[in-house]
This record gives sequence, C-alpha cells and structure tokens, in this order.
Amino acid sequence: MPNILILSKNAAEYIKLLSAADLPGAVLLTPGQPLTNCEIVIGEPDRIRPVLEQLPDVKWIQSTWAGVEPLLDPALRRDYRLTNARGVFGRLMAEYVFSYLLLHERKILQRLDAQKQKRWDPTITGTLRGKTIGLLGTGSIGAEVARTAKFFEMTVRGYTRASEDSPDVDAYYHGNSLFTFANGLDYLISILPNTGETREIVNTALLAQLPPHALFMNVGRGSAVDEAALCDALRRGALAGAILDVFNSEPLPPEHPFWSTPNLLITSHSAAPSFPADIARLFIENYRRYVAGEPLKYQVDFKQGY
Amino acid sequence: MPNILILSKNAAEYIKLLSAADLPGAVLLTPGQPLTNCEIVIGEPDRIRPVLEQLPDVKWIQSTWAGVEPLLDPALRRDYRLTNARGVFGRLMAEYVFSYLLLHERKILQRLDAQKQKRWDPTITGTLRGKTIGLLGTGSIGAEVARTAKFFEMTVRGYTRASEDSPDVDAYYHGNSLFTFANGLDYLISILPNTGETREIVNTALLAQLPPHALFMNVGRGSAVDEAALCDALRRGALAGAILDVFNSEPLPPEHPFWSTPNLLITSHSAAPSFPADIARLFIENYRRYVAGEPLKYQVDFKQGY
Repeated sequence: MPNILILSKNAAEYIKLLSAADLPGAVLLTPGQPLTNCEIVIGEPDRIRPVLEQLPDVKWIQSTWAGVEPLLDPALRRDYRLTNARGVFGRLMAEYVFSYLLLHERKILQRLDAQKQKRWDPTITGTLRGKTIGLLGTGSIGAEVARTAKFFEMTVRGYTRASEDSPDVDAYYHGNSLFTFANGLDYLISILPNTGETREIVNTALLAQLPPHALFMNVGRGSAVDEAALCDALRRGALAGAILDVFNSEPLPPEHPFWSTPNLLITSHSAAPSFPADIARLFIENYRRYVAGEPLKYQVDFKQGY
Repeated sequence: MPNILILSKNAAEYIKLLSAADLPGAVLLTPGQPLTNCEIVIGEPDRIRPVLEQLPDVKWIQSTWAGVEPLLDPALRRDYRLTNARGVFGRLMAEYVFSYLLLHERKILQRLDAQKQKRWDPTITGTLRGKTIGLLGTGSIGAEVARTAKFFEMTVRGYTRASEDSPDVDAYYHGNSLFTFANGLDYLISILPNTGETREIVNTALLAQLPPHALFMNVGRGSAVDEAALCDALRRGALAGAILDVFNSEPLPPEHPFWSTPNLLITSHSAAPSFPADIARLFIENYRRYVAGEPLKYQVDFKQGY
C-alpha cells in the first residue's frame, strides 16, 4: 500500500493521469497532506530537494526531468533509488535540432529580412543532404537525432563513453579522439549530461576543429560549454552560428553577453519539455516493476551522475 | 549524330557535365553557333520558347524545370516530345516544407523577438507528432513530403486525380471530396501544377474548411491560389499563417499586398532549385533511351499540361 507523493508544477495533471491508471494499492498525496509512510515520490528535482530529509520512508524517486543535478549534491542522502525521465525526449529533441539546422540551411532569417524590404530573394538554398553532423553523447536522445540525420541523408559521427547501440551512427569516437571526431564537422551538437568529465568540453581547442561555416548546438547541459570561448569564436567569425537551449545559469541573466552575441540564438530551455502524459506512462511502467520487485527502468547511478 | 542545343543560364556547367558523360554521337551547341540539324534541346522553358520556331528539326526537348508553362501555349507547335524534370526535387521540397512547419511549431520567430528584449521565454513548444497534413497533389514530390511526414509521426491525407502510389499517404481523396479532404487539417500544402482544373482551387470555400490554427503552404504553382481570398483569411485570423514559394507573377511586384500581409512568408521561388548535376543525370538517362529508341522518362502530356 505505497503512498505516492506528487511534487510537481503539473500536480493536478499527474493526479488525473495516475488516478486513471488505477495503480494497485497506491495512495496519491500532495504537499498539503501528512507525509506519513511516503515510499515513492514523483516530481521535479528542484521541488524534491528541499523536502528530501523530511521523507524517512522514501525508497524510490521518479524525476520528471532528464537532469537530476539538484539531487546529486554529495551532501544529500542517497539511500533510495532515483530514476529519471528517458526515452521520451528523443523525438522532441530531434524536432528541435532539425528545426534550427533547416532554419540555417534554408536561409530563413535572410529571406525574412528581404521580405521586410519587399525584395525578391531567390538566393540558392543549402541542404542537409550530404552534410556531416557530430553528436557529443549518443544515448537515447542522440540515437533519435542520429536517426533523423540519416533520414535526411547525412553522415553521423558520435562521441561517447559507452553508448554504441545506434545503427544510425556511422562512426563512434572515444576518449582522446575528440578532435578527430570534431574535425571538419558541418554541425556539432552537444547532448551531454552534467558530469565532471563533460565540463567545458566545448572550449577554444575543440571549436578550433570546426570550419567557419559550422553550427554548434547545445541541448544537453550548459556546463559542457566554455561560454567565453564560444562568444569569442562567434565574434571572430570562426563559427557560423550557435543555438543554445541550456546554460550554466537559468534563466539566463539579462546582463549575460550571450543575449547579444552575433549569430547566437537562445531558446530558453524549451527544446524538450516533460509532457505529463509521457512521464506518467513511464512512471506507471516503473510502478508495476516496483510492486513486482523487478529492477526499475532508467535508474540513475549517483556516482556517474546520470 | 544528334546535335544538342543547350539553352540555360547554367550552360557552362551543362557543357562540362554532358561532355564528361561522353554521350555517343552527341554534338553540344550553344546559342552563338549555327543551329543546323538540331534534334535535341535541353534548357529552361522560358529560354526555349523564343527560338522554338527556328528549330525545324527538333524532336525532343528536355526542360530543366518541373514547370513547362512557357511551352504549353496552344499557339506553339507540339510536334516534338517534351520531357520535364521530375524525381529530383522531392528531397529539397521536403526539407523546405518541414523547415517552415518546424519554424511554426517551435515558435522560432517568437523566441527571436524575446531574445531581442533579453527576455527568457520558455513558452511550451508545439510538435509535428500527431498532426494532420493534407497534400494537394501526390506525385513524386508529394510522395517525398508524405514520407517525411510519416517519419515525424504525422497523419497524411492526399488529394489527387490519379497518383496513388505512395504508401505514406493514409487516405486518398478525389474530385468533389475536396472539402472532406481539407476539413480540420493542421497543415495544407499545395504541390499542384498549373492546369485548368487546379486554377484557384485554394479559394475562400476551401480555406473555410481549415481551423484557425492551420498553416497553408504553396510550393506548386501560384495559379492554384485565389490571392485575395488568402490575404483576407490571414487578415481575419481565419488562418494562422501562409508560406508561399510561387506566385501568379514572378518576381512578385513590390506593390503586391502579399509583401505585407500578416503571418504570410515569401520565399521567392527558392524551395527546390534545379541543380545542374541532378538535371544532367536525368538528361543522360533519357539520352540513352532516345538513342536506343525507347520511351523517354517524364514525358509531358500537352493536353494535361504536366
């Protein structure tokens, strides 16, 4: 008879979705109610963190986000199973990545400017076909981006520590072959989580491997980017553009130089939202496993950080 | 020993490509040279039309464009085989269509405005997944758009006179079921050629079948659209947006109301250019057939107009 605490800005929607699922033995709780015998929590990591010490009986926490940084602080307890949201962001993230690659190739912003001047602008279009995309990180999201790239007849390189399952990645790179991976790419996409190994991996030396027509995109975590190095590359014209969804500090402060760096587009962490219907489906599947005593899907390794 | 006349703004490129192909018996001619015994012409229809009567021996004309309107004037001779460019525009056209569908769903222009104000804008994104797209015309280009729509997990409706070969179209509509086809579509895409039957098919009555959140896109021919009706629908907010690549008059005159109609984007007939390498490949294949006395690929039916 596990009590499930819902700590989410979308609590009303989760209550509706989980009630409809008729989970055997479950009692749904929200913050107003007494938190006795609360074994399971589902919610946003930043809402869970402040109450973590007030839940002595918690055994499993399901994050509604992919990123679980707020719960990885070494000062916090780790005596429960933490699962994150995975496998639900791939399609949305692929739509995001290709919307901006196509915006660039199709010269959409240039054509909008021409229209403002009532000027016919038949400038020849670019195309995705034949281009080379490099993915920093080839987990479930990277695999969906790779599959989409193949659909558009591109070449795909992947840089990864351990995920080599995607048949759509043409070549995998590891460890100190990072520069070989990046050399000559048309597009570099970071999908990396925030770990010690990924911090500022996108720095001056890595950006120097890209040709001046290349685009950089960050949909993973802001910590992967040396922000000053990226601004500098864009200002020097050493890079054609950058599209950033994630930042070291969010919301990005108004005084940050990114807001006005040339050819840098900011998308305010909107690339792949956690739609409650998707997250609830994932939770329900894990709840069935929890009750049956089976291993949970997408359990986070506290040491690796994802 | 057929003489081939090249009448193209890309003549130098075609001479290079066709010379490299080493076509058996072919002699390549350009406008400066005497046009004796000229059996074959390859080029843009608007360049071919003025010299058509000066080529008594012409037996086959290969258009570098899909559209061949300049050669369909009933006053002109039709005693030769006319082939157009097909099968080479599908991927480019699909990239075009999806670049603008994603621009819309991802609220890219809204996010650009927010960035100008240094404002964090995490407005929830839309998605292609689950949306319904309607294709007016399901030939080789429509089939590629349909295949891309399926990749993005959309529902596809097709309206066609005779092309029903695509496995990616979920339902085909014909003749007077046009309104049933259009009713409730999220996106309506016209890929229609210019014929008597397609003239102003996109009019007030058809647009009234679309919900106010729908987008209309024209990548076929300008004649398919009742321009005043489209402007009116956009001004009334009866339609969320229109993206137009083709027009009744090109280049679009500076005084045309389209330039400043709200939520209407103009792309200056840039969606799917005729890259000489693609067209030459197609011509070389047809030349082989011509010499062997076999039927040519993509022969135009003068009566149907495509």
